Amino acid sequence: MRTIPELQQIVEKGIQELDLKLEPKELYEPIVYFLGLGGKRLRPVLLMVANEMFAHHSDDSLKAALGIEVFHNFTLLHDDIMDKAPLRRNNPTVHKKWNESIGILAGDAMFVKSVELISCVPDNKLRAVLTVFSQTALEVCEGQQLDMNFESRENVSIEDYIHMITNKTAVLLGCSLKIGAIIGNAKDEDAIALYNFGKHIGIAFQLMDDILDVFGDPEKFGKQAGGDILSNKKTFLLLKAFENADTQELQILRTYIPGDPSIDPQQKIKIVTEVFERIGVKQLALNAVNEHAAIAYEWLEKVNVEQGKKQELFHFAEMLKTRNA
Amino acid sequence: MRTIPELQQIVEKGIQELDLKLEPKELYEPIVYFLGLGGKRLRPVLLMVANEMFAHHSDDSLKAALGIEVFHNFTLLHDDIMDKAPLRRNNPTVHKKWNESIGILAGDAMFVKSVELISCVPDNKLRAVLTVFSQTALEVCEGQQLDMNFESRENVSIEDYIHMITNKTAVLLGCSLKIGAIIGNAKDEDAIALYNFGKHIGIAFQLMDDILDVFGDPEKFGKQAGGDILSNKKTFLLLKAFENADTQELQILRTYIPGDPSIDPQQKIKIVTEVFERIGVKQLALNAVNEHAAIAYEWLEKVNVEQGKKQELFHFAEMLKTRNA
Repeated sequence: MRTIPELQQIVEKGIQELDLKLEPKELYEPIVYFLGLGGKRLRPVLLMVANEMFAHHSDDSLKAALGIEVFHNFTLLHDDIMDKAPLRRNNPTVHKKWNESIGILAGDAMFVKSVELISCVPDNKLRAVLTVFSQTALEVCEGQQLDMNFESRENVSIEDYIHMITNKTAVLLGCSLKIGAIIGNAKDEDAIALYNFGKHIGIAFQLMDDILDVFGDPEKFGKQAGGDILSNKKTFLLLKAFENADTQELQILRTYIPGDPSIDPQQKIKIVTEVFERIGVKQLALNAVNEHAAIAYEWLEKVNVEQGKKQELFHFAEMLKTRNA
Repeated sequence: MRTIPELQQIVEKGIQELDLKLEPKELYEPIVYFLGLGGKRLRPVLLMVANEMFAHHSDDSLKAALGIEVFHNFTLLHDDIMDKAPLRRNNPTVHKKWNESIGILAGDAMFVKSVELISCVPDNKLRAVLTVFSQTALEVCEGQQLDMNFESRENVSIEDYIHMITNKTAVLLGCSLKIGAIIGNAKDEDAIALYNFGKHIGIAFQLMDDILDVFGDPEKFGKQAGGDILSNKKTFLLLKAFENADTQELQILRTYIPGDPSIDPQQKIKIVTEVFERIGVKQLALNAVNEHAAIAYEWLEKVNVEQGKKQELFHFAEMLKTRNA
């Protein structure tokens, strides 16, 4: 079995060599630009790891893996427009570098391309692969809608939040692993176990993201520290803080979230972070990360392959728990 | 074989009964709204007609047909955002009734739904159906990009224009017919002939649209007369007018297209329409309609089924040439 770093290189090369037509250039240049911004390529790598757990080391699953990465980037590109985000991986977003119409259409074309690539699987796997893909794609849209709804909704519970990130982020990791398993001829029960492993790892991954946004090293994490606090985002940390705050802490939170737009941003980040520290929401979030990682391990245990073949996914889950970027 | 009006009713009912989840309602309500705005449902009807030319009268192709209609509506919804159009079939567009983010995401979810529906074909047809669909979907994106490019491009030729409408509009009619033929077990050569019939009928259809925009009855056509003139759209009529104008006509055209924004809109429409009449661009456009209809008929002739089974498509092409709405 190849290691995750080895597969990352193969995927990166595959992305660079994608057959993206040149004309009209106004459509394809933004796609090449956005796909070239990099990233960890986790989803396609997971797909290929799952494939190699069952099948002989081969690139049979590479095109489907690239399809998943193109799909993921399509969702990021459209999300950037909806969130009016100026930057993606420290570079201008497509709608900023070009315009919104270009961004909408480039995303649409990426979606088409992802369907085309994901369909590059043997005929007897095509139905199963498409079924999990289209179900997942719809859930990702639902997750994005819930995320937008939460911006203006008052009563968001931790359960609502976990439901939202499950759809928006986690199911695509599960889907990637399941597609890899299907291409590798895995039994249904193994494909389902890997899907669930991926889903819970995905939830843990997003929770770590919430933690790193506040407590991470901005240099390593690549985003401004406290960005979620500034945008009043209802993350796990903020929801837990509201849930566990005493009267005084509640008053501070209510003063700063959403708070007067004239409040100094650094002041807002500093004070809300202090409240987070007093309440101990970082530890509560880490507990939730460990909880979901533990469920993920249980699912991985159930997969019927020799232990050695699970090593890469164990490593991956461990890395995730201690990640700082 | 069922008639086109019969199939229109079946498709309309199918659209109304589509399994669109209820939650989150912010995602699904705009989809149900937009799909409910009606329309002629030409593409799904063509798909089912092609299917019945080869297969026994059945609803085997209904889901794929609905998928094509959902895909078509997804493109309209996103185009409306890009064009900043306030109205669609005399009703507010989704981004006006809700907002742009809702419009982008509702469109994305419709695209997913269309892939799911179009995949509802027998296993041994799935690959062929997906191949023509994804190729066509990419061409539709390319056509929309070209259309946007033309807004600011000076040197658009008639050939460029035909290439653009072929991609943006015509190939989806060809694709619909081809998918219907594939589901009906047609031979490759027949499926290809129907694709080409659809493509040329599609070009003729769009050219009629250009004509009706200027010379149609706004009551019947459902759009403001002269909308294309007002938005300086490089239609077949305008391009032909520039191509055939004498010095004086050229001067008038250049005064009004794009022209000072302060010019009275009705005045602009009146004067440009008069120039169109003097140059005779309506007849030139009708000639082009007839040319493409004639090519379409030739392709229809080549399809290896008894003449009676071609009746509905002949009718359809005739209707199109004399359509006023």
